[in-house]
Order: sequence, then structure tokens, then C-alpha cells
Amino acid sequence: MQYRQIFEDAIGNLKTEKRYRVFADVERNAERFPHAVWRDEQGTEHDITIWCSNDYLGMGVNPEVIAAMKSAAARHGAGAGGTRNISGTSHPLVKLEAELADLHAKESALVFTSGWISNLAAISTVADLLPNCLILSDALNHNSMIEGIRRSKAERQIWRHNDVAHLEELLAAQPRERAKLIVFESLYSMDGDISPIKEICDLAEKYNAMTYIDEVHAVAMYGARGGGVAEREGQMHRLDIIEGTLAKGFGVIGGYIAASAAICDAVRSYAPSFIFTTALPPAVADAAAQSVRLAKSRPDLRMAHQRQAWLTKHALMKAGLPVLPNPSHIVPVMVRDAQLCKAASDMLMTRHGIYIQPINYPTVSRGAERLRITPTPYHGDAHIAHLVESLVDVWTTLGIPFVEQQDVEAPFANDAQCTYPALATRRAAE
Amino acid sequence: MQYRQIFEDAIGNLKTEKRYRVFADVERNAERFPHAVWRDEQGTEHDITIWCSNDYLGMGVNPEVIAAMKSAAARHGAGAGGTRNISGTSHPLVKLEAELADLHAKESALVFTSGWISNLAAISTVADLLPNCLILSDALNHNSMIEGIRRSKAERQIWRHNDVAHLEELLAAQPRERAKLIVFESLYSMDGDISPIKEICDLAEKYNAMTYIDEVHAVAMYGARGGGVAEREGQMHRLDIIEGTLAKGFGVIGGYIAASAAICDAVRSYAPSFIFTTALPPAVADAAAQSVRLAKSRPDLRMAHQRQAWLTKHALMKAGLPVLPNPSHIVPVMVRDAQLCKAASDMLMTRHGIYIQPINYPTVSRGAERLRITPTPYHGDAHIAHLVESLVDVWTTLGIPFVEQQDVEAPFANDAQCTYPALATRRAAE
Repeated sequence: MQYRQIFEDAIGNLKTEKRYRVFADVERNAERFPHAVWRDEQGTEHDITIWCSNDYLGMGVNPEVIAAMKSAAARHGAGAGGTRNISGTSHPLVKLEAELADLHAKESALVFTSGWISNLAAISTVADLLPNCLILSDALNHNSMIEGIRRSKAERQIWRHNDVAHLEELLAAQPRERAKLIVFESLYSMDGDISPIKEICDLAEKYNAMTYIDEVHAVAMYGARGGGVAEREGQMHRLDIIEGTLAKGFGVIGGYIAASAAICDAVRSYAPSFIFTTALPPAVADAAAQSVRLAKSRPDLRMAHQRQAWLTKHALMKAGLPVLPNPSHIVPVMVRDAQLCKAASDMLMTRHGIYIQPINYPTVSRGAERLRITPTPYHGDAHIAHLVESLVDVWTTLGIPFVEQQDVEAPFANDAQCTYPALATRRAAE
Repeated sequence: MQYRQIFEDAIGNLKTEKRYRVFADVERNAERFPHAVWRDEQGTEHDITIWCSNDYLGMGVNPEVIAAMKSAAARHGAGAGGTRNISGTSHPLVKLEAELADLHAKESALVFTSGWISNLAAISTVADLLPNCLILSDALNHNSMIEGIRRSKAERQIWRHNDVAHLEELLAAQPRERAKLIVFESLYSMDGDISPIKEICDLAEKYNAMTYIDEVHAVAMYGARGGGVAEREGQMHRLDIIEGTLAKGFGVIGGYIAASAAICDAVRSYAPSFIFTTALPPAVADAAAQSVRLAKSRPDLRMAHQRQAWLTKHALMKAGLPVLPNPSHIVPVMVRDAQLCKAASDMLMTRHGIYIQPINYPTVSRGAERLRITPTPYHGDAHIAHLVESLVDVWTTLGIPFVEQQDVEAPFANDAQCTYPALATRRAAE
């Protein structure tokens, strides 16, 4: 057994298939977000603009969020010092869970070290506690949800993506008294499409099923207080378990569920991935709680975000770039070839100082390779103009096909939203 | 299907079995560590001393570690903004991985969001890449290692805890050319016993097996530079994969592996629990890197830690309290009854202001319930005297059996270690 060779071969295979990933070494600058420093493989520093961050609202660079982190670190130290059960339940974490329960109008909330763990822990624990549970899972659910489903002993059926007729077919085939858990997302992050939450809740009521929604790409960004798409659509109270993240719209790190007290207590008590791990540091909890409080009271951030996302989409479509249409803040620009997608990303970085990571298999299916662009409220109109010029240059140079130019109407032309300009960090103008 | 009732029943069962866990709401005070504020269920605040933290060296309250976290938060923001592949690989994280590779004298290191995820990701990925791999797992391995083993498709055999004869028996029964992965810990956290690392490495060489060691309760604390028990015993270079945590001895949060470049690259490229999760914030990475640098250059912290741990053990044994003997910094005091253990913990907290979480099933087996005490360099001689008095009072009041009083010789009576007094945080004397 030549061990080393096996690992080298595993890496070699990825390189042959053109899906070996090189991580960009990026240094964010809180005062100049979305600008950052990129170090190339020789260690040379380049000033770049990040266009692919999931810190969608720039909450991670919000001065109040940063101040909360610094203050808590000074008062409580850098870590929690233990698992939740063994000295790690800090008062900041207790307060964060109360903020999250309030955000989703649920009895309780439970914080995990990541959104990935939230899904693993909550889905597997809930499904295993329900006798003979059937999990009904949307075909495009995130890896962490699939891992939670696989870890449980429950039977699983997949319904076609966002296809409520197919979901109903599967539900109708089951006895009413059988335990059923419908697992889906509100906003799918790669295509940016939104699920029919109301229709799914209607079916759950009709067939007596529980509902589990992943709102990680929506919390902070949708709904009157940032409770997600379910809040915006008045469905939050109908969902049994809402899962979210503190790492994207809220700009910090960690994941959570909000649900009834009994469900949160059961997951808290039975999930090994929750029990046997060190709690989030108090400094992270206080930063996240500050971010949640801001989200509740700052619809202007959400409006500025939607405005810049729409302006970006509009400008790209007007230039004939192949934007995948969707009703959300995600701007997928399709390349449909792994090697070209990587080449486009590389050229954007080295020639134009624009950082957009290529999205290739297995994150999306083969043939659906893309540049996934995520404008934030800090991407100003000049940033957008520079992005369009740069993409047109790269598309032209590499011979990637353009599409027909489109001039779509602004959804908020006569709306208060258009009065919110892009935000600027303290030194962004420099 | 009455969903709510099922979750309420699941909680009810834990209460009936006396293993329902109540988390203590604790507010650490970085300037007065190990002192803290505990809020009881009525919200009343009490000044307490934490005696059960896994921030073993108090690195979480080290002013240089806190300063690193605050400074990085100010410069880079509160979060990473993405997965490692999509804008989340911050320069602080790159530097942290270099520090960790250096700590363990390996080609490479890879950081995860937690130690729990390190074990899940690394064990399952390595075992699945090796064709027809056999995993040989110590019977007392941590839950996260068991989860990693279960998630892989590999066959698994359990060897009796620390029993190298049994391990050899299992190895000898396999063809030399079969891939084999020996998975074990250096220091088992509940009993505080240490594994025969050299003998296990000898067997791995003899039978051509790979070795995977979990050093989470040893890194920062053992070895000339804090590389763990394997460093202390000159075995670090013989271990293929060393897994550690940034959350215990290093006082922050996160986990890692250190190994060959090929192994780290393979885990980086294939493990979904690494790929599909947001990276640790730059502020966490910088704090952890500062802690690793301190550990490398501060053997005095390790000596003060060992001294206070030994003094604690000695004082408890001299008072006839049933300390489980071991060669490490962990001080298990046996109660051997779930209800008594909880009652002892409650009385220590409410009557004496001492916080030691009861350790009951499933963390230890039934009948092995205990108070697990973890002295740090900041637990001074007066803290120890107060601990002994308080435990004697609780043991007497609750009628928990004492054992014969023992006066054991200090292992460092003529050693430089005894010259290191306990440390004091800035305001600890108040």
C-alpha cells in the first residue's frame, strides 16, 4: 500500500478534470469594503474589488458589529472555553438566541458553530425522533441538508426542484398518520430562485407534515425585519423549523434554528454535533446579536442591497451578458464551460482587479458553470460600471458568447427603494 | 401524528432518567479569570470561580490573544464573507495554517470551523480515498471521531482502550497490502489517561498502517513548543495525521489537521463539511495564530499549568476525595451516581460559588459519573484551598463516600517547574 501515491492521484484526477480549486488569498479591508488585497502565488499584492462575497449586506464591516466584537473580546476573552454544557454557554450566546427567536417569532432558538452543522444536527435529530419518519427533500437542497438527511435513519424521497405538484403526489401516497418532514430552502443560492413557501405550507397542513426551511441566503435580507422570505410572504408562523446562518447576511459566523421550545430543546439534548463541540466565542455571539438587531431596524440596508443588485443585473443584461434571470439579489452570469469559467475568473482578477470565483462542478452541475456575482450595498454605481466594462472585455477576449441585449424596467422605478444610494465605507472613496 | 408531543416526550425521558442537562449561563470576565458571573434561573447574578473550563492555559484571556482578535476585527471585519473557495480564504487564515504546520513539523495544515468537523471531515475523507480501507479505532475515541468513521464507507474494527496487544492482534490478521488507518487520541479527556503513542507507531510501521492521532486535549499544553504529547515523546514525525483544536489549550475556536501536503490537499478538495461551510473569521484566525505563537515560546505557561494541576490533585487526595489517578492535567473526582453528581455540582455553585459541571451519561458510562476539574495557571493556591474546603463540605453534606487520604510526592519537587507560581490576571486580586 503506497499511501502517499493514493492522495497524490486523488489530487491529480481533479486537475485532469479541470476542477482542482485554488483558493484566492484575500485580505478584506473593513474600511474600504468591497476593496481588498489579493496575494498572488508569488506573494505580490494587488488591490481588488470583491464581487463574490456572501457578506451580502456588508454587515461584517459594519462599525457597530465590529465594535460589538471588539468590546466582547476585551470583556470576555477570545473563546468560550467549553462546550455548551461544560462552561461554554456564555451570556452573550443566551442573548443571541433570544434575538433570533424574536426575529422569527418562535418560542426558541438554538445556535450552532455553523449553518452546515445546524442542518446536519437539526434535520437528523428531528427525523430520528419521529417514529418511521419520511423525509421529503427538494432535489436542489444544499449539501448540509443532504448530510443531515443521510445521517438520519429516516426514509427519504426527493421531489423535483420547486415542483409542488410532485411534492403533493408524494405526500398523497402516504398515510396521513405517518410522520413526514418537508425539507427545502427559501432561496437557492446558485440560481437565485425562490421557492413557493405558501404552497408548500398549504400542502404540509393538508397532509399533516412538518416543515423545515433553510433561509441562509435570505435572513437579514428579506422581510420587514430581515426574517427572510417567509417573513416577507407572511408564512413564518406556518413553518415548524426555520434554519438560518449568521455568516452571510449577518456577516459573522455560525448557524441556528428557530422553532418551538420542545424542538429546540430536543435538538439541544440529542444532537452529538451540537453537544460535543465548543460553543461560539462570546465575541462572535455579541457581534452576531448586534447584526441581528441592526437587521431588524434597518430596512434601508435591504433596500440599498436590492437596488445595487438590480442595477448590476440591469447593466449586465443591457450589455448582452448572459445573466440567468431570477427574482433575488444573486446575479449568475452563465459560462457553461469549466475551463472558460476559470479563465474568465483569472482574467478578471489579473487584468481588471475584479474577484469573482468561478463556480464549477460539483457546486453546480456540469454545463452550468458560471460566474456568481453578489452585489452588496457598498458596490456603488462606479463599481458596477467598471464590472460591466471588465466583463465585456473578458467575454470578447475569450470568445464567450454574448446574448441579445435587454433593457429591463426597474422594479422600483416609482418606489422609495430607488432613493437609497449605495453606501460607502469610511475610506471607500480613496 | 401529534408532532409536539413526540418532542416533549423525548425531553421527558431525559428528565426521568435524570440526565436532562441545564446549561449554566456564564459570563467570563477576561480581567478576573477564572472568576465569572453566573445568572441563575431567576436572573440573579452570582460571582463564581470556573473550575471546569477547557481554556486550559487561559489563552482565551491572554491580553496578546485578545489584542490580536480586536485588531483583526477592526482591520478585516467580523466575518470571512464566504466559504474557503468563494472569497473566504483570508490572509490571516493562510498564516494560521502555516503556524500550525510549523508547530507539528508537517508539510501542511488545514483549518476547520471546529475540532468536531476536523475529525468528521478528515477521517471520513482519508478512509474513503483509501481503497478497501480498514479503520482500527480505540474503544474510547471521541464522538467526532466515531462520526467520521461512521460517515466513511470503510470497515471498522474497535480495539480495547489503549490495548496495543489487542491492536496488534487485529493488525496481524490483515494482509500487509490492505489499507489500514489507526485512529486514536493522545490524551483522553474524561479519565485524563495518555495513550502509548510510540508503541502504536511501532505497530503502524510493522504492519504498514497509517496513523491518525487526536491531540485536542494536549496541544498547547505538552511538548517543548506545545505540539502535544507526540512532540513530548519524540513521535510527531511518525504520525501521518495530527488533529488538534484551537478551542481548548489555544483558547479560541476551530479545529485543524497537520499532515503531508497531499493529505491536506485531498481533504481540502474532497470533504463536503470543509467545502460547503463559511471560513473562520480573520479575527478568530489572527487570535488563534497569536495563541499558537505564544504556545511555541512560553513553556512557563505549561509549567505553571502542570504545577497548579498537580497541587489541586495533591490537595484533593490529601483530603480523602476520590481523585481518579492519571498522568495529566485533568482532575476527575468520582461520584459514580448521576443524581448525586448533579446535586454536588448544584451545591458547589449555590453554596460555594464554584462551577464544576456534572459529567453524566452519555459523556461517561453509567456508574462513572464525576466532577471533572480543570485547573488553569490562573487558579492560584488560595483558589485550590477554597476548592478543597468546598468539596469536603459538599461530600460531607450529601454523604458521598470519601477514600483513604493520600499524600503523594510532587513530581517536580526538585524541578524547575515548582518555581513557576500561578498567574494572575490584571484584576484577579480584587
